[in-house]
Amino acid sequence: MGSSLPRVVRTRAELRAALAAAPRPVGLVPTMGALHEGHASLIRRAASQNETVVVTIFVNPLQFNEKSDFEKYPRDEAADLRLAGAAGASLVWIPTVEDVYPAGFQTSVRVSGLTEPLEGAARPGHFEGVTTIVAILLGLAGAERAYFGQKDAQQLLVVRRMAGDLGIGTEIVACPIVREPDGLALSSRNVRLTPEQRAAAPVLRRALLAARARFESGERDGDLLRGAMSELLAVEPLAAPEYVSCADPGTLAELTTVGGPALLSMAVRFGAVRLIDNEPLP
Amino acid sequence: MGSSLPRVVRTRAELRAALAAAPRPVGLVPTMGALHEGHASLIRRAASQNETVVVTIFVNPLQFNEKSDFEKYPRDEAADLRLAGAAGASLVWIPTVEDVYPAGFQTSVRVSGLTEPLEGAARPGHFEGVTTIVAILLGLAGAERAYFGQKDAQQLLVVRRMAGDLGIGTEIVACPIVREPDGLALSSRNVRLTPEQRAAAPVLRRALLAARARFESGERDGDLLRGAMSELLAVEPLAAPEYVSCADPGTLAELTTVGGPALLSMAVRFGAVRLIDNEPLP
Repeated sequence: MGSSLPRVVRTRAELRAALAAAPRPVGLVPTMGALHEGHASLIRRAASQNETVVVTIFVNPLQFNEKSDFEKYPRDEAADLRLAGAAGASLVWIPTVEDVYPAGFQTSVRVSGLTEPLEGAARPGHFEGVTTIVAILLGLAGAERAYFGQKDAQQLLVVRRMAGDLGIGTEIVACPIVREPDGLALSSRNVRLTPEQRAAAPVLRRALLAARARFESGERDGDLLRGAMSELLAVEPLAAPEYVSCADPGTLAELTTVGGPALLSMAVRFGAVRLIDNEPLP
Repeated sequence: MGSSLPRVVRTRAELRAALAAAPRPVGLVPTMGALHEGHASLIRRAASQNETVVVTIFVNPLQFNEKSDFEKYPRDEAADLRLAGAAGASLVWIPTVEDVYPAGFQTSVRVSGLTEPLEGAARPGHFEGVTTIVAILLGLAGAERAYFGQKDAQQLLVVRRMAGDLGIGTEIVACPIVREPDGLALSSRNVRLTPEQRAAAPVLRRALLAARARFESGERDGDLLRGAMSELLAVEPLAAPEYVSCADPGTLAELTTVGGPALLSMAVRFGAVRLIDNEPLP
């Protein structure tokens, strides 16, 4: 809607100077760029709750366990700035790797238990990279609130645990998943799907909804709910499931029986592209 | 000089409420209690640079690698409050273990390289305990400055690295070692020395000064400077040296030749009591 481009800062010093003059409260939206409507929803939410919105664009090498995934991660700064500005960002912080991890950097932040199953099991080192960079971004920004998408449900839990455990004064705000009309959760990785894979990808959502339907019909057996997801995925030849899960939404331990809230989640490969999705119960 | 006792806060909520009303800047002095004149010097320094001084008393179980050392660590809250108040503390924060590490706590902060030699090699897990608790205390207090003694020289380096790496906005201020008239560095562990051990303990200082004298006479060979310390220590039958070091003061790598600044340091056991001391060159 004709908003001007947000101001860009690149170094710690520029960020500090810009924030010293910024109206409070400050909302932080950490991203890896390749912004899409999912990010826009985080930025709009932040803009509705804060006087200043800082969007971070940083493709964090620490959290990629495959170098090729890091290198192929899509980057388009000009498009990102337009989208961030239109959604309400005041400031876009685009640090260099050297500025985030200066010479001699040797600190890491690790969450144990919560990081072990699911994405943690599939992507060794991933969450240590995430918690380290998020701790740094929260430390440098000193924001009152930070916004994370529910699509990365385990990341959200891990980040919230980390911030609470370390006494970081930033409130972690969860935002709902944004989907394409056919149900595919928005992801920067979607652009790497071939047309055939893209057509097949909504199977994740259908599998989650199949399990939800079983749950709503009274099914409480964890194996049967996981089985309902696996059955749907098995029908799609392009989909290679990595895991399906029906877990405690606080601890992420797999449930034998669903006695209260639960988190259905899955990771599925389509060729080289790995997609995740989830659905909270009830 | 007749100051009233400082206000005591125990929970995160009480601390937050007290700090919300406190004049800025805030200086934090993290301690494990058993306060002595060394701590008093940190508190006085903090009081000279800040409007509010918060002294933390927390015997952190995470940083003790020997359970008996944790259990035997001296505790005397009433005496600590008197000393802290007289030195200029506005607030003494005495959290419980459960408040610092709430149920489900599972986050750790680790510094790699710098924590490997010297104290890190002698005390497995020690520095991870230190960096985790210091990150928590800095996060919860949100102080402008935090004060650490030069006596724990490696701890000071590690904490400064951690705070810088994680973008924590608290300035880490180093304060000089305070000594008894006979040269023994003040330490809460000194009270556990027998009279004979206490009489022997100044050998650490004499060994450091012997190496300094060699340095000032032109000696630049790392092995010979370390040897000078070991020789002195060997004369004292009650002293069991754990290490002597002549290291780069930035990286703590042992020096073959002293070409610039260096840090002489040592750890020596007297029975069950482990003492450390150090001396920067030049």
